[in-house]
Amino acid sequence: MSYQAPVRDIAFMLNHVVGLSNVAKLEGFEEATTDMAEAILEESARFTSEVLGPLNTIGDAQGATWEESGVKTAPGWVDAYAQFIENGWGALSFPVEYGGQGLPMCLSSAVQEMWHSANMSFGLCPLLTQGAVDALAHHASEELKDTFLPKMVSGEWSGTMNLTEPQAGTDLAAIRTKAEPEGDHFLITGQKIYITYGDHDMTENIVHLVLAKLPDAPEGVKGISLFVVPKYLVNEDGSVGEQNDVRCVSIEHKLGIHASPTCVMSYGDEGGAVGYLVGEANHGLMYMFTMMNQARHAVGVQGYGIAERAYQQALAYANDRKQGPTLLGGNDSQGIINHPDVRRMLMTMRSSIEAMRGLALDCAAAFDVAAKHPDPDVRKASQRRGELLTPLVKGWSTELGVELCSLGVQIHGGMGFIEETGAAQHLRDARITPIYEGTTAIQANDLIGRKTARDGGLGLGELMADMKSVLAELQAADDVNLKAVATRFEPAIAAAEAANEWLLGQNDPTQPAATSVEFLMMHGRLAGGWIMARAALAAVAEKQKSDADTDYLDAKTLLARYYAERMLPLVESGKTIVVDSADSTVSLDIAQL
Amino acid sequence: MSYQAPVRDIAFMLNHVVGLSNVAKLEGFEEATTDMAEAILEESARFTSEVLGPLNTIGDAQGATWEESGVKTAPGWVDAYAQFIENGWGALSFPVEYGGQGLPMCLSSAVQEMWHSANMSFGLCPLLTQGAVDALAHHASEELKDTFLPKMVSGEWSGTMNLTEPQAGTDLAAIRTKAEPEGDHFLITGQKIYITYGDHDMTENIVHLVLAKLPDAPEGVKGISLFVVPKYLVNEDGSVGEQNDVRCVSIEHKLGIHASPTCVMSYGDEGGAVGYLVGEANHGLMYMFTMMNQARHAVGVQGYGIAERAYQQALAYANDRKQGPTLLGGNDSQGIINHPDVRRMLMTMRSSIEAMRGLALDCAAAFDVAAKHPDPDVRKASQRRGELLTPLVKGWSTELGVELCSLGVQIHGGMGFIEETGAAQHLRDARITPIYEGTTAIQANDLIGRKTARDGGLGLGELMADMKSVLAELQAADDVNLKAVATRFEPAIAAAEAANEWLLGQNDPTQPAATSVEFLMMHGRLAGGWIMARAALAAVAEKQKSDADTDYLDAKTLLARYYAERMLPLVESGKTIVVDSADSTVSLDIAQL
Repeated sequence: MSYQAPVRDIAFMLNHVVGLSNVAKLEGFEEATTDMAEAILEESARFTSEVLGPLNTIGDAQGATWEESGVKTAPGWVDAYAQFIENGWGALSFPVEYGGQGLPMCLSSAVQEMWHSANMSFGLCPLLTQGAVDALAHHASEELKDTFLPKMVSGEWSGTMNLTEPQAGTDLAAIRTKAEPEGDHFLITGQKIYITYGDHDMTENIVHLVLAKLPDAPEGVKGISLFVVPKYLVNEDGSVGEQNDVRCVSIEHKLGIHASPTCVMSYGDEGGAVGYLVGEANHGLMYMFTMMNQARHAVGVQGYGIAERAYQQALAYANDRKQGPTLLGGNDSQGIINHPDVRRMLMTMRSSIEAMRGLALDCAAAFDVAAKHPDPDVRKASQRRGELLTPLVKGWSTELGVELCSLGVQIHGGMGFIEETGAAQHLRDARITPIYEGTTAIQANDLIGRKTARDGGLGLGELMADMKSVLAELQAADDVNLKAVATRFEPAIAAAEAANEWLLGQNDPTQPAATSVEFLMMHGRLAGGWIMARAALAAVAEKQKSDADTDYLDAKTLLARYYAERMLPLVESGKTIVVDSADSTVSLDIAQL
Repeated sequence: MSYQAPVRDIAFMLNHVVGLSNVAKLEGFEEATTDMAEAILEESARFTSEVLGPLNTIGDAQGATWEESGVKTAPGWVDAYAQFIENGWGALSFPVEYGGQGLPMCLSSAVQEMWHSANMSFGLCPLLTQGAVDALAHHASEELKDTFLPKMVSGEWSGTMNLTEPQAGTDLAAIRTKAEPEGDHFLITGQKIYITYGDHDMTENIVHLVLAKLPDAPEGVKGISLFVVPKYLVNEDGSVGEQNDVRCVSIEHKLGIHASPTCVMSYGDEGGAVGYLVGEANHGLMYMFTMMNQARHAVGVQGYGIAERAYQQALAYANDRKQGPTLLGGNDSQGIINHPDVRRMLMTMRSSIEAMRGLALDCAAAFDVAAKHPDPDVRKASQRRGELLTPLVKGWSTELGVELCSLGVQIHGGMGFIEETGAAQHLRDARITPIYEGTTAIQANDLIGRKTARDGGLGLGELMADMKSVLAELQAADDVNLKAVATRFEPAIAAAEAANEWLLGQNDPTQPAATSVEFLMMHGRLAGGWIMARAALAAVAEKQKSDADTDYLDAKTLLARYYAERMLPLVESGKTIVVDSADSTVSLDIAQL
């Protein structure tokens, strides 16, 4: 099943909900006009549907393969990547001074959705490079930047993030990789696991960002430093030189994303890999967070990107598959799409995808404003908003994305369980998204701790206030669907506020931690409702125009209504779960489990 | 990770919630005493953990393979099946007159949970045989019964169900397989798909039950007849004779249950497969429903059986995996089980599994009473209860089973996505259960139509009344946890009653169909809460005994409380979803999707 990027839906969100035109008013983002954005989206749609999409199935079936000489990507991958960098897709959001196009994050995120819909395994390579570029651009010396960034921005060299070790998963304090100083560089020794695209054959060099400890490092997370360790050393003239002492010793056999090599990397088997310190010693974890926030948002985009692909496939199947009489189609065989329950599944997929997309783009736009707005207070508030929404984008969109891909399988009936159909691949691929770049529990911990408790609920309060003003607009409107949205939005906001108040009143951290994922999910669902309400308000406003496409705009309003009636009741029950079940969650002794 | 059957938990449900001792009072079930039941459960635990469980991983990795000469099962399968029939496991629930042990369904279901936990792919073979035995025992002539049943009951021959054709999935009216009369038999011609264990090498014969149409058959479902078509014809003396004109032409490449061959069967390539009419012509669909109700319950058992396996694996991992300080374990690395969110996932799995197990066994006990009770009114009411609960057991337990297996993956973090860990296999295997033997939508349609609208809500009203008397017991009790359960049970019952009333008031079938799956899920969750409440009441009562195991019994009460606080709020939101979203679910035109 081929992929066609939903350019119109993406542009609707950018233009009418997120407010791209406001972003384009900021100094440095002037090129991101509505027309330019649509041209970029159209071009990206063409590239992803024609080049990346068709490689998705073969990537799953053949996967990446480990060889003594290095990891080989699936057939067609090398050529597709060459086209990817030739067309400049890797450079979209990067700083202009290193050859990037400097586009706002909201626009580059919109493009990246298409990569992951078309071919999530492929999209991971530039996703990781982007994180590495970000960390270097923010924290590395000018010399390191000059050496590595231009080729990474162009995509000629890819980047990786090396955090995890076998004995230390989420707990980075336990890492053992060592860095011994030697002249102007360090010798890195240790093993890293779960390294996405740790080795491959698509670029002439691979730039690893590696967390390691100096000999005199303090204990725990305050003793972690960040190093850049290229696969091939770089000559004075910038050309690729001799191989560094780093290799991929094996790749994992995974449930999904078979074409994205997940590598076990060994550093220093022959004495030590040459690495260069990024920024100051012992600041590595903080620098890595630069990469992680970026990467977490990007993984949230994957969450709905893969669900969009699953939706397109399920919709096509539901239209094509004829099977007896249906309630909505009558006695003639008109496609199972005319079964009301198939509509339920498609509506759940479609409305949820739009909600997640809008939230991710809104979050990205907040970071754009935070980066470029002239007023420091606005920058600060926008940064707070972007950081608050990031765990929702990552946690909620990936959990929901998995559910939606599972619905995509269900719509196919028995065919969904047959691998040749392709529906199951999306579910297998999606299943990693709530795990990597910090599990949902880590996102929830970030939400209740760093993003809420730390500022006494300031950011969350601002968000609730924004939601209430949207609620007031809905209530003031003279439209039956907008009023129906308001009917469910109002108690959902009240439930969220009650949960927030409960959270901020807790002293023992155990209870909030016990239901933090429920707290994250309720806020994700509510934020999705807020986005959909804004889309519906915009659609009703757009309908006043003389050339309005009424069918299209009505669909936006009805999708918002469905979302409110299907998803927002879960915010109300979510409050009960968050508050009432916190105690019983931890009530059993281990031996009783 | 090895499987250990939760004998104590199963026995607790049978003895203290389901009331096995009442079933054992019925004529014909006298042998099913508490002691006998525990002996059977212990023996089954030994067999499943020692013989079936260890073959689960190799079955997944190697799968069944198609060869010109026939389908070969995975290494070890043939020997395990030989032990299975030698120990008499296949004959547990079958009529004594054909060599079965005539045990009540509640006890045989308890045993079958263990098959599916240990090795779901293996368990499917006897599951299908059981359905075929049931259909023949109820509807076939004495001659056919004498020919086929003894060997099927012993397990020497296996059975299959042949419904689906490529053009006719759920819509059986569209089947095209033909049956031409010839002498005392019929010649069957056609193709069937999705035939579980349609061919394999574990038994000397395979008895296919096949839906086909006679030449003069009426249109649609009223023209379907049921035939028995053995792989090898049976000689006068009962021995296996020449090969029939039926063959497996290919097997499917599936997401999971790799070791269970899903066959495309071709009948009559060389003129026609010899088949024998079961019962009367054109009654096939009705007879097949005998198999389907049985099989649907059994698939519900698979739903929580596979979740139990995933739970055991996740619990072991959470205990073993050490990784830094935890809120519940302090600063020493004491296993990620001491993270409150890992507890949340384990508690959700454990409490849900117990709720599903209790509901399936309660449903089975209702069928037992319906089969053997001397009072025809009691039989009728029990039959109604069993039939009402069946779509909940199938629909809710399989949907929830998939969710729980996904939580099992999540608890493993990155390791869960690596196939070698085994957690992902459970998710892949479980994913078929909400699809086969009727998708969740089919179960929901059965629940709202055949089981509710048809009797004007009589059965559902009886269930609600039973729940209210349990509620009254909870409210009268002097126990903080029982009161907490009541706090959530009361509004959940009220919400369900409101949804029932709405459903029964609908004239247009479209709206109930649009949210029927939500209706099924809310009733499944509520019924699970009812079971858990009964378990908690029993545990509090048991605690009064002098030799009571307080830790064990307290855990039952706390699991019930957790379940009530985590799951029953979803019944309240479920009512809103069922009623409010029915309209918007079908509000878009196809072109707007």
